[in-house]
Amino acid sequence: MSFEKLYLEPLFAKIEELKPQFINRLARAVAIPSVSSDESLRPRVVDMAKFLYSELTTLGFKDIQLKDLGNQPSPVADENISLPPIVLARFGGDPAKKTVLVYGHYDVQPALKEDGWSTEPFKLHHDEAAEILYGRGTTDDKGPVMGWLNVVEAHNALGWELPINLVCCFEGMEESGSLGLDRLVAKEAQRYFKSVDTVCISDNYWLGTTKPVLTYGLRGCNYYQIVISHSGADLHSGIYGGVIAEPMVDLVQVMSKLVDSKGNILIPGVNEMVAPVTEKKDALYDNIDFTVDDLHAASGSNASFHDNKKDILKHRWRLPSLSIHGVQGAFYGPGAKTVIPAKVIGKFSIRTVPDIDSAKLDKLVIEYVQKVFAELGSKNQLNAELIHDGAYWVTDPFNESFTAASKATEHVWNVKPDFTREGGSIPITLTFEKELKTQVLLLPMGRGDDGAHSINEKLNVSNYINGCKTLGGYLHYYGKQ
Amino acid sequence: MSFEKLYLEPLFAKIEELKPQFINRLARAVAIPSVSSDESLRPRVVDMAKFLYSELTTLGFKDIQLKDLGNQPSPVADENISLPPIVLARFGGDPAKKTVLVYGHYDVQPALKEDGWSTEPFKLHHDEAAEILYGRGTTDDKGPVMGWLNVVEAHNALGWELPINLVCCFEGMEESGSLGLDRLVAKEAQRYFKSVDTVCISDNYWLGTTKPVLTYGLRGCNYYQIVISHSGADLHSGIYGGVIAEPMVDLVQVMSKLVDSKGNILIPGVNEMVAPVTEKKDALYDNIDFTVDDLHAASGSNASFHDNKKDILKHRWRLPSLSIHGVQGAFYGPGAKTVIPAKVIGKFSIRTVPDIDSAKLDKLVIEYVQKVFAELGSKNQLNAELIHDGAYWVTDPFNESFTAASKATEHVWNVKPDFTREGGSIPITLTFEKELKTQVLLLPMGRGDDGAHSINEKLNVSNYINGCKTLGGYLHYYGKQ
Repeated sequence: MSFEKLYLEPLFAKIEELKPQFINRLARAVAIPSVSSDESLRPRVVDMAKFLYSELTTLGFKDIQLKDLGNQPSPVADENISLPPIVLARFGGDPAKKTVLVYGHYDVQPALKEDGWSTEPFKLHHDEAAEILYGRGTTDDKGPVMGWLNVVEAHNALGWELPINLVCCFEGMEESGSLGLDRLVAKEAQRYFKSVDTVCISDNYWLGTTKPVLTYGLRGCNYYQIVISHSGADLHSGIYGGVIAEPMVDLVQVMSKLVDSKGNILIPGVNEMVAPVTEKKDALYDNIDFTVDDLHAASGSNASFHDNKKDILKHRWRLPSLSIHGVQGAFYGPGAKTVIPAKVIGKFSIRTVPDIDSAKLDKLVIEYVQKVFAELGSKNQLNAELIHDGAYWVTDPFNESFTAASKATEHVWNVKPDFTREGGSIPITLTFEKELKTQVLLLPMGRGDDGAHSINEKLNVSNYINGCKTLGGYLHYYGKQ
Repeated sequence: MSFEKLYLEPLFAKIEELKPQFINRLARAVAIPSVSSDESLRPRVVDMAKFLYSELTTLGFKDIQLKDLGNQPSPVADENISLPPIVLARFGGDPAKKTVLVYGHYDVQPALKEDGWSTEPFKLHHDEAAEILYGRGTTDDKGPVMGWLNVVEAHNALGWELPINLVCCFEGMEESGSLGLDRLVAKEAQRYFKSVDTVCISDNYWLGTTKPVLTYGLRGCNYYQIVISHSGADLHSGIYGGVIAEPMVDLVQVMSKLVDSKGNILIPGVNEMVAPVTEKKDALYDNIDFTVDDLHAASGSNASFHDNKKDILKHRWRLPSLSIHGVQGAFYGPGAKTVIPAKVIGKFSIRTVPDIDSAKLDKLVIEYVQKVFAELGSKNQLNAELIHDGAYWVTDPFNESFTAASKATEHVWNVKPDFTREGGSIPITLTFEKELKTQVLLLPMGRGDDGAHSINEKLNVSNYINGCKTLGGYLHYYGKQ
């Protein structure tokens, strides 16, 4: 009998059989409004950690720990507010088996019915006609977290061991900057996470709505600010207009030299650092399930730079981009205020890709901004600085873990997954790779239109249930290798 | 006996004698926190109108009316909040005499001790060593309003009639857009204000701190916004950076073409509309009491475009300027938010001077913005529009009213006043000129460093008392002509 017949078919059948229980588990999770950005809801975030503790205990996980991360650093309204704990748990500890660390987060984005939700955001709504589960956290990231628990439940129901040792790391601050996580991962690398062979993160999405994907790359992000000021206070444009050099005018001049309206980065040397696309890699884009219409539908905008799939995906995944986000310190309200702001701070960021050297980029950017400003001959002062950076990440999509995930996906969905990258960053990916010195796999459960941070967040029932099968299948293929 | 000996010397002596009463009157006015922008303080603004009613009655004014202006239009917190009344009053009605309308406002800017005031803002503090009166409204504009009342009190004490018929128009919403005033002035032009020969407004300041001025010009202000948007929502720069044309990038490009870092307006045709400076007018700047250091001290900034008095004053008074005030809709907070705003609104204004035609300016500006945007080739949408305009104002500084004021000022201060213009606008000036078809004089009482809208607003005792003499002297010289 084949491996698939022996292991996957009974597992998948059991998952189908347990579907009502699995939906019920997700419903109980969604009912807890674990919004990490709202300090007043912090007790509910902790409730969610306790819910996980209870579920993990019932399922037979061992060594379950709610890791205290101390108080949340400022800015906070309540100086004594604690960070929600990171939930660690193990299932199985056979030294002969490989160990897979699975990461997910149990906190969610804010949601209010009044924001425009069709149903109560913290009450799972099962649309049985469309077979869709609506609710905050269904896809981001309670669905995937419940997925791992469901896989264990299915194995228990079959009376099976897991094919690998499972280590869970579920955090409660992902939507609020993953405060405390990096330090915990570093601290536990040689302790709780000592024997981990690989890491699987299920916290992103398919590119589109019909074809599963595995994700092997992320862009980085270097975020800069340009501070231009004079020594005075905000001034009245009637009295000082035409008399005093305006920081906002200088800022607009400098920012106009960063990027053009076609998206071309104007800072010399940046594009030159980008790794060339090989013909083989270029061909990878051909099969990906994505269209210009998908872009328009997802963005709501017709203002796309590119009229073909390949250029869109290259610009999203493997080419740098420069965005101007806004200005701090200038007038930002409605109406007509005749102020000359004394100190304005322009904000922009560059999405980074291989082989951009982050430190070299900073130097190029800051020196260029200084040069452009100097050419203005302004008497104002300038300070340009990096205020945040996150590295890009690219891994080998043909390694053991990706191969296992690819096989599992294909077996569940009857189609080879697309190998995708993402334009945004998932900083924890790099943390695990660096601290545990392992490969990391991004194995998404939901679809590109799930609306993770929007109103009416949803997870299709097929994605939830097939997602559980994919996670389970992945563990079997990976354990078999 | 000379006119001055006969009339001014006794009047001035009486004013000196009544100084304690006059300071007491100002103290009682300052004690009423008539902040027009704070709806919760609206009853106190009305209390201030009642205070004026009582004072005017005691002094023997006639036909005193508190003109109801109806409810304040939205945006308001309380939909039923009434505008404070405009206080009208007459003193004298001799058809053989000329009639002078005096305008002032009895509302004030907000002030809290916590803002950094050295003393309670709504309690007059008489610094007897420095001979300075501190308190909100001392200079803007309760000092000048009390000044007119003081002039009448001095005449009463002397047993004199006024040399002219006086009509008072004191409003309570000046610091909040003078809501209701334009309509009232238009309505009363042929009624309450029927016989008015000239208008005197005491609501501005000396240019510096030592030399009195008369003001004969104001710049106008046309305020524009540039709306650039796409049809979608705010987007994430990780996913859409490099893929979707960013409205903020387009806006920065367009705004960079409006004005350069030297203050030069880049919109063709604007500078061409400016009236040339004649040699005679150019010479007028030579004697004005003002230095580059005054500019630096007042602005707190060393970033001045010009290194000499004449250029500074020309650029403030008789040349247009373009200021970029800010951006609505973009990220404006601290920190690093990776948003691509979907709709951004750039705000800028042009200060106007003779002979700029406002409608022609709007056309030049809007068509230029459209042209610059079109050249970008962006797929975003643009809308450029005027959102507010106020005309410039210039009058003849050698007319009857200015000549009277000049003589009075010289007699009080022993120096010929400087004839100044202002860079900002005082819209009511134009309203009176247009509706009453009379000349308007701006006759300031306070100094350039009084801090009208700032903490520690003050009025020097000498300015208050000499100001009363100047107002009284002005009426005598004007009545004599």
